[in-house]
Amino acid sequence: MSEKGRSPHSSPVEISISEFFEKNRHILGFDSPQKALYMIVKEALDNSLDACEENGILPDIYIRIAKVDQDRYEITIRDNGPGIGRKEIPNVFGKLLYGSRFHAYKQSRGQQGIGITAAVLYGQTTTGKPSEIITKRAGDDVAFRFVLGINVKSNTPNVMVEEPVIWDQKSGTEIKITARARYHTGKQSVVEYMRETAAVNPNMELTYDDPDGNRMVFRRVADMISRTAEEVKPYPVGLEIGEIKHLAGQSSRKTVREFLVGDFSRITPGIADEILSFAGVDIEKRPGKLTTEEISRIKDAMRKVNVPPPPLRCLSPFGEIFIRKGLMNVYGDLKPSFYSKPVERKPSVYNSNPFSVEVGFVYGGDLPVDQQIRIVRYANKVPLLYQAGACAITRAVQETDWRPYGLEQRGGNGTPYGPLILLVHVYGVRIPYTSESKEAVAPVPKILEEIKAALRTAGRELKRYHQKSLKRKKAYEKFNLVGVMLPEIARKSASLLGRSVPDIDPVISKIANVLFITEDISKSGDRVSVTCHVFNYTKQIRSFRLVAFPPVGNIEGTDEFNIEKLESSRRIDIDFQVSDVKGNYPGTIYYFKGIDPIHVLGAEPLPADWKVSGIEVEVGDS
Amino acid sequence: MSEKGRSPHSSPVEISISEFFEKNRHILGFDSPQKALYMIVKEALDNSLDACEENGILPDIYIRIAKVDQDRYEITIRDNGPGIGRKEIPNVFGKLLYGSRFHAYKQSRGQQGIGITAAVLYGQTTTGKPSEIITKRAGDDVAFRFVLGINVKSNTPNVMVEEPVIWDQKSGTEIKITARARYHTGKQSVVEYMRETAAVNPNMELTYDDPDGNRMVFRRVADMISRTAEEVKPYPVGLEIGEIKHLAGQSSRKTVREFLVGDFSRITPGIADEILSFAGVDIEKRPGKLTTEEISRIKDAMRKVNVPPPPLRCLSPFGEIFIRKGLMNVYGDLKPSFYSKPVERKPSVYNSNPFSVEVGFVYGGDLPVDQQIRIVRYANKVPLLYQAGACAITRAVQETDWRPYGLEQRGGNGTPYGPLILLVHVYGVRIPYTSESKEAVAPVPKILEEIKAALRTAGRELKRYHQKSLKRKKAYEKFNLVGVMLPEIARKSASLLGRSVPDIDPVISKIANVLFITEDISKSGDRVSVTCHVFNYTKQIRSFRLVAFPPVGNIEGTDEFNIEKLESSRRIDIDFQVSDVKGNYPGTIYYFKGIDPIHVLGAEPLPADWKVSGIEVEVGDS
Repeated sequence: MSEKGRSPHSSPVEISISEFFEKNRHILGFDSPQKALYMIVKEALDNSLDACEENGILPDIYIRIAKVDQDRYEITIRDNGPGIGRKEIPNVFGKLLYGSRFHAYKQSRGQQGIGITAAVLYGQTTTGKPSEIITKRAGDDVAFRFVLGINVKSNTPNVMVEEPVIWDQKSGTEIKITARARYHTGKQSVVEYMRETAAVNPNMELTYDDPDGNRMVFRRVADMISRTAEEVKPYPVGLEIGEIKHLAGQSSRKTVREFLVGDFSRITPGIADEILSFAGVDIEKRPGKLTTEEISRIKDAMRKVNVPPPPLRCLSPFGEIFIRKGLMNVYGDLKPSFYSKPVERKPSVYNSNPFSVEVGFVYGGDLPVDQQIRIVRYANKVPLLYQAGACAITRAVQETDWRPYGLEQRGGNGTPYGPLILLVHVYGVRIPYTSESKEAVAPVPKILEEIKAALRTAGRELKRYHQKSLKRKKAYEKFNLVGVMLPEIARKSASLLGRSVPDIDPVISKIANVLFITEDISKSGDRVSVTCHVFNYTKQIRSFRLVAFPPVGNIEGTDEFNIEKLESSRRIDIDFQVSDVKGNYPGTIYYFKGIDPIHVLGAEPLPADWKVSGIEVEVGDS
Repeated sequence: MSEKGRSPHSSPVEISISEFFEKNRHILGFDSPQKALYMIVKEALDNSLDACEENGILPDIYIRIAKVDQDRYEITIRDNGPGIGRKEIPNVFGKLLYGSRFHAYKQSRGQQGIGITAAVLYGQTTTGKPSEIITKRAGDDVAFRFVLGINVKSNTPNVMVEEPVIWDQKSGTEIKITARARYHTGKQSVVEYMRETAAVNPNMELTYDDPDGNRMVFRRVADMISRTAEEVKPYPVGLEIGEIKHLAGQSSRKTVREFLVGDFSRITPGIADEILSFAGVDIEKRPGKLTTEEISRIKDAMRKVNVPPPPLRCLSPFGEIFIRKGLMNVYGDLKPSFYSKPVERKPSVYNSNPFSVEVGFVYGGDLPVDQQIRIVRYANKVPLLYQAGACAITRAVQETDWRPYGLEQRGGNGTPYGPLILLVHVYGVRIPYTSESKEAVAPVPKILEEIKAALRTAGRELKRYHQKSLKRKKAYEKFNLVGVMLPEIARKSASLLGRSVPDIDPVISKIANVLFITEDISKSGDRVSVTCHVFNYTKQIRSFRLVAFPPVGNIEGTDEFNIEKLESSRRIDIDFQVSDVKGNYPGTIYYFKGIDPIHVLGAEPLPADWKVSGIEVEVGDS
């Protein structure tokens, strides 16, 4: 055991983190040339989005992948972020384990200060070539250009060129890495990564030039700054003894009391007193002087005393709209028959780290019935395309019995079969990934538990849908009977008797007793003109609100319509335009409010939490 | 992207590897108290076995897990290894990324110099308590006792006590760690880990005292030193440009030619000249002066030139016997009807690292028919109990179409169903694990490929078995007919006619024409006395060899018997003893040599590579 240090051949030595990762690059996700290309783009893109989000910038990203020779590619990623200070550059790109977010107590894509440096290291290892960086801070009139590599033995930057350059960009950073790589465009490719990232970052404009000289543009479809997570102080409950000791040791506070109140979130003076008296620790004691035993008692006391749940502003979910967009993006032209109302769990804590789970799904329609359901995984807004098998999300799905919810699943475990696409987003201050490549969420019990709870809620909604769709089916049949047959009969008999066709809508209303919503669509270019028809085939006058949700593209003007006093047997038409529609328009989703759903065909009840999705801007208001 | 370093809140800082792993301990496998206990025992036990193997010591291991309080345990692991030098202790246990095997080019369990230190760190983080180490080198008359922790900020050892002590042990090391943990004994427990480790390390004696005061002893059942891997020089083909540059930079050789010949394996002066002329590099050039371009050309040249495959003595497979033992151990009392001849692939190379794959399986008998097959994973002789989903082994099984081999598998992928236990061992100089917890082999294409190839070979054997067992069935039926009915008839008719029963064995032989092997067993304590009956129901005199293989326990004396001239219709009895049989004795497996299998019932043909399994000692010879 201890013989870790012993070997008859070589004597033990210190290993630099760079040496370690050079030999173990698969841990960072660089396990094949194809994967490596993906990782380089991913690390760069994630960092760019973090930086823009934190600095309130609408991201403009440019990516270029150019073939150098048979197995070498030059990868360029440029952003319009805040840029980096000249002094920081060498360490940021040339030193592993150097970063700002590691100690920051907030949700972000990057965490460890490893990703982009690992990309530089991989390029150097596989091609011997250094990386090139250009960066400019807003307000500066010159940019700086660096050519650098990594001294592997010492894990220090090796700067070859450092020079001021003129750059026609207000601010931003560009990195160019030459690396062994293989290019493909199918599953788990850089392209899929860009697509799934764009899907949930509608405020990003991404231009991509591929190795064959084709350009692909992911347009910005929402002009708002996405809600960003705020940094907060550490949440004390669940912190390890060692961690508290650590914080106490470096605290500048005079007393334990001030330490608890000042250095943690959610601890008021009152709570601090409670904790300390419970732990039997002198409130005046210097934090640095706390013994392990005292800290251990304080730790236990914090569980007993009622500390409020952690502040949520350190988290940032997708919210309903983005989840829908994420789903749309996945199923392309298949038209599911059911769009779920996403489930958003109340945040909970896994050793002192707040986290939460969102789940959304689409079901039925043209989705394949005889295949395993599709699971779309996101962690802290980053799509996870690899290591599905290792991921807590996959495991939670497989360990959930889906049979009660109407899916086929052998023995009640394993990935179920059915026409279902499931989007699961785990987000938190510190996601425990199974490895540094951050491809899978570690199956930590607490997190598994939360995902499963979210899945069961989604499952119940799926079940309700099955039941409801039965009712609906009956209603439709009835409506088709009266709404289609009667007019036919009326017309026929009228022509036989040489009479004019009678208005039988009132009759239909009497029998059908439903509000019926359909639409006519005409598309020109990427614009769609929609005319929505609302028939009131009920006996009463109806007043209600109708919300139109275009699955793709963006509605112009309002998407919310108040229908005042639509009389029995009358119809009203609503016109609106949808822009930026690429490919097919799957048809508008309609929500209504103010009528018993049993009387409505062609629209869904408006989700109660419609406005709390946190991305109101995109919905627009009338 | 580059904004890794930027954050409006905190400025970038250097992160120590200890801080990194303290915050990301799940990457090291410490993701739950239950898992943590398992990891601590695992890291210690693996190191002990490595050290004993390298130093030609038969491992005597003692493990104790004692409950401290509701969620804290004290874990003690003691070995009889070579011990550690006093000066090395602090770094070996108190500094992450410090070890001797990292640069060693050979197969071993430990690699990174992280494992045991991570255990010390985890103990400190969760309980604030330091670890205690006692170690003694052979020949020294005193041992040294250390109490130490880790300075997380600087990743340096923090030694609190260092004192000489008297220790009644020739040499060895003991470590005591107090940590938050949860104890269980079921699947994925420390106990399962010890069992699966003992199964493939029959030369280890392991004594375990559990928290309830029960003692469990895994006896040494084989007295030989297991074949150990030897350290060799790096294999040049597949090395990265960066790595070659690195080696060239620190080489003491005068010329590139000497560098190639002296610092790598498999490069003769002749090959070196070929490579260099092919690359167009001056053979007299100083290694340190090589340009990236030249190195890149040398790298390409090494692929073109015919460099012999890497030396195999740096690898160490289980071999047939150990694989069988490994399997036996897993299926307990279920009696499979078929024991496969393990498949051993020729070693191949994944970026310059030699590796290979072994596969063995048992099939049928009492194994459950309607469940997924059981996959037993080993990497470098270490059982893998977690993260099956992420593992190349699991993926290779799931991506293999088992239907042609007679297993049920929906759509030809996914884990198949059937009465099969599959043991897969991946071993190599550097196994790419998906993370530092070393729980799963990364699905590197080259490795996936090799595993699949091995699985297909195993699959074909399974198919042959299915076909053969059909033939056998017929043969048995035929034999039962003649071998059972005829004597009956003879006896009956004899008694009717008041005659003595005639010897009809010759008649049976004429019709049956098989050699029939059965055995009688009597068990007392853990000793089994076996009498093996061999009937020659063929027309010829038969001479052949019979090898007895007791699935559990150990045969006393020879296990190989030469049967000279067994006449037609005659029978011979062979007696032998099997000791150390715990639980049921599933019956002996018999192999024969020297007869066409079609004429034999009750024994398998002797595997051709029987003697090349590398662990001859245990088979014994007559």
